Amino acid sequence: MTNTQVTLVQIDNYGPWTVTPEPRREVDLQTLQSRLYADLSQLIGNREGYVFFTRFDNMIAVTNGLDREAHALVQESVANRYPVTVSLGVATDPSPATALGDATDLLQAAGSAQDEDRTQILGGGFLAEEDRTDGDVQIAHFDVIDATGKYTDRLNAFDSFIHIEQGYAELMRHMRRAHDSLSFFVGGDNVIAVCPELDRAAYRDAIDHVAGEVGVDLQVGVGQARTAQDAGMGAKHALETCRHDGTDVEFASRR
Amino acid sequence: MTNTQVTLVQIDNYGPWTVTPEPRREVDLQTLQSRLYADLSQLIGNREGYVFFTRFDNMIAVTNGLDREAHALVQESVANRYPVTVSLGVATDPSPATALGDATDLLQAAGSAQDEDRTQILGGGFLAEEDRTDGDVQIAHFDVIDATGKYTDRLNAFDSFIHIEQGYAELMRHMRRAHDSLSFFVGGDNVIAVCPELDRAAYRDAIDHVAGEVGVDLQVGVGQARTAQDAGMGAKHALETCRHDGTDVEFASRR
Amino acid sequence: MTNTQVTLVQIDNYGPWTVTPEPRREVDLQTLQSRLYADLSQLIGNREGYVFFTRFDNMIAVTNGLDREAHALVQESVANRYPVTVSLGVATDPSPATALGDATDLLQAAGSAQDEDRTQILGGGFLAEEDRTDGDVQIAHFDVIDATGKYTDRLNAFDSFIHIEQGYAELMRHMRRAHDSLSFFVGGDNVIAVCPELDRAAYRDAIDHVAGEVGVDLQVGVGQARTAQDAGMGAKHALETCRHDGTDVEFASRR
Amino acid sequence: MTNTQVTLVQIDNYGPWTVTPEPRREVDLQTLQSRLYADLSQLIGNREGYVFFTRFDNMIAVTNGLDREAHALVQESVANRYPVTVSLGVATDPSPATALGDATDLLQAAGSAQDEDRTQILGGGFLAEEDRTDGDVQIAHFDVIDATGKYTDRLNAFDSFIHIEQGYAELMRHMRRAHDSLSFFVGGDNVIAVCPELDRAAYRDAIDHVAGEVGVDLQVGVGQARTAQDAGMGAKHALETCRHDGTDVEFASRR
Repeated sequence: MTNTQVTLVQIDNYGPWTVTPEPRREVDLQTLQSRLYADLSQLIGNREGYVFFTRFDNMIAVTNGLDREAHALVQESVANRYPVTVSLGVATDPSPATALGDATDLLQAAGSAQDEDRTQILGGGFLAEEDRTDGDVQIAHFDVIDATGKYTDRLNAFDSFIHIEQGYAELMRHMRRAHDSLSFFVGGDNVIAVCPELDRAAYRDAIDHVAGEVGVDLQVGVGQARTAQDAGMGAKHALETCRHDGTDVEFASRR
Repeated sequence: MTNTQVTLVQIDNYGPWTVTPEPRREVDLQTLQSRLYADLSQLIGNREGYVFFTRFDNMIAVTNGLDREAHALVQESVANRYPVTVSLGVATDPSPATALGDATDLLQAAGSAQDEDRTQILGGGFLAEEDRTDGDVQIAHFDVIDATGKYTDRLNAFDSFIHIEQGYAELMRHMRRAHDSLSFFVGGDNVIAVCPELDRAAYRDAIDHVAGEVGVDLQVGVGQARTAQDAGMGAKHALETCRHDGTDVEFASRR
Repeated sequence: MTNTQVTLVQIDNYGPWTVTPEPRREVDLQTLQSRLYADLSQLIGNREGYVFFTRFDNMIAVTNGLDREAHALVQESVANRYPVTVSLGVATDPSPATALGDATDLLQAAGSAQDEDRTQILGGGFLAEEDRTDGDVQIAHFDVIDATGKYTDRLNAFDSFIHIEQGYAELMRHMRRAHDSLSFFVGGDNVIAVCPELDRAAYRDAIDHVAGEVGVDLQVGVGQARTAQDAGMGAKHALETCRHDGTDVEFASRR
Repeated sequence: MTNTQVTLVQIDNYGPWTVTPEPRREVDLQTLQSRLYADLSQLIGNREGYVFFTRFDNMIAVTNGLDREAHALVQESVANRYPVTVSLGVATDPSPATALGDATDLLQAAGSAQDEDRTQILGGGFLAEEDRTDGDVQIAHFDVIDATGKYTDRLNAFDSFIHIEQGYAELMRHMRRAHDSLSFFVGGDNVIAVCPELDRAAYRDAIDHVAGEVGVDLQVGVGQARTAQDAGMGAKHALETCRHDGTDVEFASRR
């Protein structure tokens, strides 16, 4: 059974900051956001976690293996190097969606995302080292079958993007509603989903749903492990098998 | 009338690179992509352009004011500092969608995005200095009315994201199909659209369409100027007027 | 004759910030400093200027071609993305040392580097566009002859560094005292000096002085142009000639 | 007794790369070097190590607590995100200078720093977890007494730098020769030295030596701990005591 530790990273009072005393230059906001995300990727990713940019002002991470101290260090490191601070809510549950719900509740209970006095919250429940297992995290890595041949090399770049985006939008909603999973666009034609322990039929259902609704053909590799990094790397290798063998759902052997 | 110079930035042969000789760690790919985007933001943004991350392996920029030499410098700077290179296709048209189509054609004609011999293409038509006018670029900056109160502070962070994402997906398709415009999610609840010379009725139509289809309420500020930076800053100020006055469409006075 | 525009970049009240409320982690300070320097390199370097890290809290730049507006943008960009701000003093003179002296005076007159109320000063004299010439900046690029064979591949890495450092220390003092020049270590075994219009004899004197005092053998390429970027690139090519031909002082043809 | 694990980080074949096929723009080299250093700071620093920029193409790190796997990850992360790769030599000894000598020997034995076939070496001796003690690393943090009042606020910025640099140059040589220590300038007026187990008399000797030779007055805080991070933070706090009490050598209580 999975047991996913999810962290919600929320920039404190960010909306007001972006327009105070007057609107800041978009180039600087874009640079700030994407660098902050890159830094969190390094800070969390190099401890075996995964972080997704999501809305940039609210980022979602899978943090099995990162304890309170590691989270405190992430928070301090951001405060020492950026003009903004972040709050972190953490929760663990077999369902990633439930875990994120609990993590969100924690921050909301502490105050509004736009409350200037609610800064640098760090709270929640960390998965104890002795409760961790080799199957705590299931990660699915989807991509679009022959996206380059069908879209990138044929359509105008925005229309290619519309197709990719539409596939993602449909998948994210379906995986959330039908399978309690959190799906994130990660660039190119790739989507990474954080899932409870789903079986082959669930993934086939998701692929069929997206093909039926918006005509975008997906394939998926699935991995399960103690950490997001290991589960995700398993998923990538399984996806390579799809590409090589022309199959649409592949599970990595447990690592 | 607008005359938008659009640049398609495409990472050369990126898909194969990410899995050669075997899949690279996701943390490194995410860091690479977001830093490359941040660097392009600085390189292009500090020359008065705008660049959008789009799919990260294909980024779209508004580059009025950047000539061939400036593009060559961007290309060289990336090659000097990253393990990947980029190709740049450039075109200008009153319709941003048409310009992007022409820019895409240029790269496609030179070879596939996954052709390892097609690297560092730089081509296309640059808007001559003497043909530039103060109305060449129209930028619209949308956001969701009270997103914090309605979503961020109330729903779980992923469900908030689904609402924002759904609003964006609907808007991007409608603006593309009905108004020849290119719309990009830029973080938080913000979408920036690059438009031909649209009037108030067109923006009201877009807002009504999104509210009707997916129930997400938008407001928009619009600016028009010689460069993306000036048009975009005008749009931001106009959007502040929406927020202050409770209106839903505001145009900046020409800068 | 040269006419070098020099900018002193000083982080405002940085010392106190690094230990308030208690000492900040060194890793974060090092990351902040080196990223800030990298960003200034991009902001100034992509406008044809050069910036040197010097003490990191006080950086020195050659900014011919960057007007007040460009400086204001650099200052704003830093403030939007870092937890610290910078002050900028600017001055122009045939002697780089005199220019830097004037630039320093400007900031000192405005208050102490550790005065918390003296922030974001921007002042000084910018070289007017009509007064610029193709010989305004002379740049000399020194390196150590066969540093790899003599030091890096033979000595322990710190002892190699001591030799390089000793060569640099001697050169910087001599060039400052004898030739009104500002010399900066830029990594490896490279030193870049910003000079008034010096001739071959002056450079030979400097090389002889360093060899005599500390036994480190240097070679140098010299370029002169309208901007630091062009002068510096000329110097690099001239240094390649030294390496190829075994000469010790080479001047680039004017660009 | 100390037992310092030292890592030499050497960019592979960097010199030739910077001038092939012709000299690369200095702005890109400076950005590449300082960002690579910032990334290593994060990768190593967030695992409790310290890394110093030294010559940028050869960086020196104190890595107690980082095993072979952590080093491999650092190496892979650089290769995935930069156009260059790094080799890592590791050794442990009560004397930091001896440890660095051994680490250097390892890389030199594998080939020249400018051998294009010698890439991504990773070798050496890692301090076994069971051999680690709470006193393995001694770090001394020096700064110049009243540098702002004596230099920064009074002299031209380059002449201030000459004084700071001269103090550093004298200190680095003396600490190396008399005390087997490795001293690094870390910005501002700060020098961090990695030392064997030195006593108060040794530090007083170093301060007296520098004051006598070049007239620069230093103070120093010293910490000793299991990791560079803890030893260094102890040193910072001890230095604060110097500043507060006007003393010149302070030891942190063991952490």
